[in-house]
Amino acid sequence: MKTIVHLVIFVLVSISVYAEDGHNLWLRRLNPKPVNVVCIKNSSTVSLAKQELQNGWMGEAGASVNLVIKTDKAIRGDGFRINANSIQANTELGILYGVYELLRRQQTGEAIQEEICNPSYERRILNHWDNLDGSIERGYAGQSIFWRKGNDAYTITETDKTLWQEYARANASIGINGAVLNNVNASQLMLTNECLQRVKAIAEVLRPYGIKTYLSVKFSSPAQIGGLKTSDPLNPEVAQWWKDKVKEIYSLIPDFGGFLVKANSEGQPGPQDFGRTHADGANMLANALNPFGGIVMWRAFVYSASDEDRAKQAYLEFMPLDGQFRDNVIIQVKNGPIDFQPREPFSPLFGAMKKTTVMPELQITQEYLGHSVHLAFLSPMWEEFLQSDTYQEGAGSTVARCTDGRIFPQKHSAIAGVANIGLDANWCGHPFAQANWYAFGRLAWNSSIRSEQIADEWIKLTFEGTGNTNEATLDQTMDWNLNFLSPVKQMMLDSREAIVDFMMPLGLHHIFSANGHYGPGPWWAPKGMRKDWTPPYYHQADSLGIGFDRTESGSNGVGQYHEPLRSVFTNLATCPEAYLLWFHHLPWDYKTKSGRTLWSELCYHYDGGVQQIRHFQQVWDRIERYVDRDRFVDVQKRLRDQSLNALEWKDACLLYFQKFSRMPVPYDLERPMYNLDYLIEKDTKRVGVYHH
Amino acid sequence: MKTIVHLVIFVLVSISVYAEDGHNLWLRRLNPKPVNVVCIKNSSTVSLAKQELQNGWMGEAGASVNLVIKTDKAIRGDGFRINANSIQANTELGILYGVYELLRRQQTGEAIQEEICNPSYERRILNHWDNLDGSIERGYAGQSIFWRKGNDAYTITETDKTLWQEYARANASIGINGAVLNNVNASQLMLTNECLQRVKAIAEVLRPYGIKTYLSVKFSSPAQIGGLKTSDPLNPEVAQWWKDKVKEIYSLIPDFGGFLVKANSEGQPGPQDFGRTHADGANMLANALNPFGGIVMWRAFVYSASDEDRAKQAYLEFMPLDGQFRDNVIIQVKNGPIDFQPREPFSPLFGAMKKTTVMPELQITQEYLGHSVHLAFLSPMWEEFLQSDTYQEGAGSTVARCTDGRIFPQKHSAIAGVANIGLDANWCGHPFAQANWYAFGRLAWNSSIRSEQIADEWIKLTFEGTGNTNEATLDQTMDWNLNFLSPVKQMMLDSREAIVDFMMPLGLHHIFSANGHYGPGPWWAPKGMRKDWTPPYYHQADSLGIGFDRTESGSNGVGQYHEPLRSVFTNLATCPEAYLLWFHHLPWDYKTKSGRTLWSELCYHYDGGVQQIRHFQQVWDRIERYVDRDRFVDVQKRLRDQSLNALEWKDACLLYFQKFSRMPVPYDLERPMYNLDYLIEKDTKRVGVYHH
Repeated sequence: MKTIVHLVIFVLVSISVYAEDGHNLWLRRLNPKPVNVVCIKNSSTVSLAKQELQNGWMGEAGASVNLVIKTDKAIRGDGFRINANSIQANTELGILYGVYELLRRQQTGEAIQEEICNPSYERRILNHWDNLDGSIERGYAGQSIFWRKGNDAYTITETDKTLWQEYARANASIGINGAVLNNVNASQLMLTNECLQRVKAIAEVLRPYGIKTYLSVKFSSPAQIGGLKTSDPLNPEVAQWWKDKVKEIYSLIPDFGGFLVKANSEGQPGPQDFGRTHADGANMLANALNPFGGIVMWRAFVYSASDEDRAKQAYLEFMPLDGQFRDNVIIQVKNGPIDFQPREPFSPLFGAMKKTTVMPELQITQEYLGHSVHLAFLSPMWEEFLQSDTYQEGAGSTVARCTDGRIFPQKHSAIAGVANIGLDANWCGHPFAQANWYAFGRLAWNSSIRSEQIADEWIKLTFEGTGNTNEATLDQTMDWNLNFLSPVKQMMLDSREAIVDFMMPLGLHHIFSANGHYGPGPWWAPKGMRKDWTPPYYHQADSLGIGFDRTESGSNGVGQYHEPLRSVFTNLATCPEAYLLWFHHLPWDYKTKSGRTLWSELCYHYDGGVQQIRHFQQVWDRIERYVDRDRFVDVQKRLRDQSLNALEWKDACLLYFQKFSRMPVPYDLERPMYNLDYLIEKDTKRVGVYHH
Repeated sequence: MKTIVHLVIFVLVSISVYAEDGHNLWLRRLNPKPVNVVCIKNSSTVSLAKQELQNGWMGEAGASVNLVIKTDKAIRGDGFRINANSIQANTELGILYGVYELLRRQQTGEAIQEEICNPSYERRILNHWDNLDGSIERGYAGQSIFWRKGNDAYTITETDKTLWQEYARANASIGINGAVLNNVNASQLMLTNECLQRVKAIAEVLRPYGIKTYLSVKFSSPAQIGGLKTSDPLNPEVAQWWKDKVKEIYSLIPDFGGFLVKANSEGQPGPQDFGRTHADGANMLANALNPFGGIVMWRAFVYSASDEDRAKQAYLEFMPLDGQFRDNVIIQVKNGPIDFQPREPFSPLFGAMKKTTVMPELQITQEYLGHSVHLAFLSPMWEEFLQSDTYQEGAGSTVARCTDGRIFPQKHSAIAGVANIGLDANWCGHPFAQANWYAFGRLAWNSSIRSEQIADEWIKLTFEGTGNTNEATLDQTMDWNLNFLSPVKQMMLDSREAIVDFMMPLGLHHIFSANGHYGPGPWWAPKGMRKDWTPPYYHQADSLGIGFDRTESGSNGVGQYHEPLRSVFTNLATCPEAYLLWFHHLPWDYKTKSGRTLWSELCYHYDGGVQQIRHFQQVWDRIERYVDRDRFVDVQKRLRDQSLNALEWKDACLLYFQKFSRMPVPYDLERPMYNLDYLIEKDTKRVGVYHH
């Protein structure tokens, strides 16, 4: 009898729990029902649309769906009009996007009324920092899906194609329509025919899903692989070389998107090497691409070892060039003026140039937010950024409106995200890192969607039906919403702020150890190192206080913002505390809004971050029965690591800053557990030679 | 003006805070007053007594104190009678002890009425596990104060003598009157003349303080250094060799105390190598020592790789020999039946043999209680042990009464503590480890003193007047008592139980990683290793439950205890939960007294231990201004390390045991932060070849 009971339990468990490696992302298709799809046109993209409907229909069984391609002025670009039984669009791709929207709403239970959905940005692009040897700069989810080293580096296998197709499908399902296939720190070899042949093969797989292919190029390519003596952009031979190269590319990839360029930045070559400006360089490439409809995305991530506040330098270099760029040049600007920190105010370059197209560059890969160890839902950070008011054309000139064409109706609009994708089975390393890929796509499509909705969608699509539960009933759905969806969503929404708290609260920034950008290194300043590559440059802690003075009495970084923002940031009474030490150097006993001293407030934030991660651990452990075992354990283990890392951050920063503040950690807080000398020694052992 | 204010503060601080390296132990002499000492007799010991009075008098200025040596039957051994102005004793040493008692009471503010103080044990001995090369087995406070290697190994310097004198004085001040100068794992070279000459020099320094010198001897010495073919104790040449050697020793050290022997234990040679019994071996040595008044302390710490429960083996080997030992042989038995664990029930050998002198061996050095990292006040553990009722002669037959002569009026009584002393400036490594040396001496002198009183004395003697406070006023004394003495005392009194909680609660024992005996290693069981040297032997965790069954259904270890104890331990309703898993293997869902399952109860204990150490950190941080900077920081740092170690213990044990229990850690508890595979990997890397 006992044996039989065990057997029964075993069978039940086997039915309801299945292995889930996360490879299907938010595209798990559960129990589809039959559907009749009507469309007069046929093409590879329309076929995909039909196939998706048939594989994923969760509406009324046997229903009919009309797919209608018809020009409608209310529909822009690849937008679409949907209701429960029809999708109308100007383009085939619009139909495909409409299908994904319909299926998503069916699966998440969102209402489907007659509605037009238009994209916010024309170009919604992933930047892959993938090197030709298969490694990925700042990649934490395995090697590149596009490139590899070895004898078969340029062989194209069925496995490659399958993966690229899955990748294209995932992107299309969230509206992404472009991919830069290689690292901005580009190899000159990218433009050799051998590499371009592989790009051609990738582009062919991506094309039916509406994904345009782009490449990062090295500005010195003409000299390095073209046999020229120079790469001076004003040299006619150089310009011709690029024209010929572009022509070659378009002969292979007729819908090629264009170039992404990191020039005169962190050691990369650029037009300034020849006494030319960024505009000279960008325009020369733009001229070559223009006949084919291609664009140049020129990065504004520039800063030199000068004495000028690093946060001001991109603005100082690019503002004078406003009006000098071709209309197929887009200046690609990181969201913050430093470098993808857990929190930065928006870069003043947004809402600055009026005659130049500017696009945001977001970082999906968690270079500064715990790699693939930390659970960090980045949507709230991007939402905060996109909704920041630049006051460029008066109140309401949000970054989103300044860049998506609403305020400046330029020829192009675009947004880029540095991808977090690699060969890991689940693509992104941390199961929750998929949510950031998802969120980037959703926000690029519609910059007004709230993070809460994005999280809600993603959780439902990703986890529903994977746990220890049987067929969905109303009771079980309510239980799932209450005990899984709700706490997990809250955890996601709180996750970025928790990281800010335990890493760099109150506007602190860039106090990472060396180049790993993972652990804390407030002390890290080797002799001879460029000052703006060391944390003390940013936190400026001394016996009097802490923070970077960017008011008029300091670097006057505030001067790059429009009024009233400039005054808001300058005035201590109005400066948001989240940016306090970004803009001000303040005494340790400065009274914060809570009534605590600055030192105590720092302590409470650091400790609060630690406690918050412990709370996340509790949240996650409690939902065990709602998730498949593999992903439950995976997330559980990563949260443990994050918890310890949070502790290291808190202890390292508080004990280091305490050497200056000479004030006790408030006695009601949990005490540090790591000794500072231990953390410094551990860090010193770990950090080898410095590579930036 | 501002400058002047700063200056004033600086001067005040300079006056009240002075560097304190802890070298003066509990013998810091603050502001002594003049005193007139009257004593008709003179000797080196009496001189010391006078000098101590003059250097430490804190009674009425100019008072007279009479030191009277006069035989009084109410006074036993080196006991004494004191009142505020006189000390009477049978011996000079009694006078010295009386002086220390008087000074202690003056300094701690304890009442001084007419009172007789007699010692509980005749011999109060420190065992030094010091090797002749200067290393110390299980020593965590630097190298040996007696031995060193190198060319000057046998040179006797003034520094040596000063240190030995300070050591002797510290011991005398708490009543310790014997020291075994070398490791029980003894070198045969100990008995060479070269070494004995050094022992002679040490003994000369120790003698005026009433400290007798003892040596650990290797049983195979006759063959190894005597040129004999055997060390068989029944061989007349062997017996003669020992007689000659003893004679040689007494010619050098007339008051030599005797031998300590670890025989047929963990690979040490012994009489069983020749087919003889422990009694044969011990008696042969006792015969040699008897003419000089020397004793043999023969250790009962024996266990073989047999299938028999290790906890039972000492009893099984020694009980049959009861009645066979000479009256100058003492069987030295560790407090618990395994090996100095954070908690063990008392060894059943106490309250077993009726015709044999038995002495307790306590371990002052924290082999299993966090080395010199953990703050562990051991007095409550020893108090618990000494007050355990063996029921040997009915209720009330405590271990203390069974061993100190009250129940069995044997020729000798003794107690030993394995020292925690080394060359560290503060002698013991952890500033609070001094309290264990102190507590051992106090309990050896008077086994009835409560730990609370010992802690109270020690804190006052060790810390009073060292912080950021001015001259003592009544207000300041009250403040000190309330905000320093009281919380620090409570921390000390709770410290051992906290360690039990985070290491091995509910009777778990010996689940240390490998031979380091510091971190957790519940998984540790290399192939081919003796089972009783691996943690799984002790915790016996499996899918059904956890714990070592020592009831009749298991090893019947309970059978070695007298009734009613045997039944108390056997019966789950009466077995103290502190010993639950020592005596029982219980299912994971066994309901404990709290109503929780055994698994949950374990979780609460582990977590409670972690939280308790964090609480200690808070206690200590709050008292910063009452302690000199050096010791404050030293203890603060060690508490941090302890806090992390507690976390490792909790996580390692809970995650390991959870593999068997398959039950969740109660959701209201803080989650584990370390991943089990990380801890195992770290441990595997750390643990090299096994040395027991």
